[in-house]
Amino acid sequence: MKADDAGNIFAQLPPSLSEEVFQEIIHGKRFRLERIISFGQATPGGQWYDQEQHEWVVLLSGAAGLRFEGEEGVRVLHPGDFVNIPAHTRHRVEWTDEKQSTVWLAVHYSKSDAA
Amino acid sequence: MKADDAGNIFAQLPPSLSEEVFQEIIHGKRFRLERIISFGQATPGGQWYDQEQHEWVVLLSGAAGLRFEGEEGVRVLHPGDFVNIPAHTRHRVEWTDEKQSTVWLAVHYSKSDAA
Repeated sequence: MKADDAGNIFAQLPPSLSEEVFQEIIHGKRFRLERIISFGQATPGGQWYDQEQHEWVVLLSGAAGLRFEGEEGVRVLHPGDFVNIPAHTRHRVEWTDEKQSTVWLAVHYSKSDAA
Repeated sequence: MKADDAGNIFAQLPPSLSEEVFQEIIHGKRFRLERIISFGQATPGGQWYDQEQHEWVVLLSGAAGLRFEGEEGVRVLHPGDFVNIPAHTRHRVEWTDEKQSTVWLAVHYSKSDAA
């Protein structure tokens, strides 16, 4: 097989972003890599992500504020910042940069067949 | 569980790099995410990587030249450039930036329990 699926992670950003965009890049056995593009969006008020899989996420451009249930304050993420979010760790995106695209890479994964 | 393992992908770069550095960030069921840091290194002459797993790699800082067996020329990677390298696709790093750290994120993965 040849090397394939080459590109640039900052290229082909959607022309308009009324909502956040989630694009799968690759998936394997019990894991999925995706690009997420935000432009000012936030998780709707009162809602939390509560995910079955672990998620490792790195912010590559823009900025964002992440809140984790039970934590004081909001974690501000700048380019290169990453965080590992264990399954069922409730979190929400409080804000994303309103002046440029925020590009994230997220790995959704399981440590075993059970979780 | 709490959000954990937070940091910046460009932080805590090794003070000296006589060799490339491979650091595991997370692993799951049949996948592994690692940070690779290069500073001028290349794959030794005549050697090729020939890997059992697929590898998706993105270059986040610096620059590098990647050669794939059977391809004319070298693919030059700049920040944000990624490529998916199927298992057993022979490739080598021809060069990496000699003036700054080249930081890569690599996902080694399998599509099934068999490969």
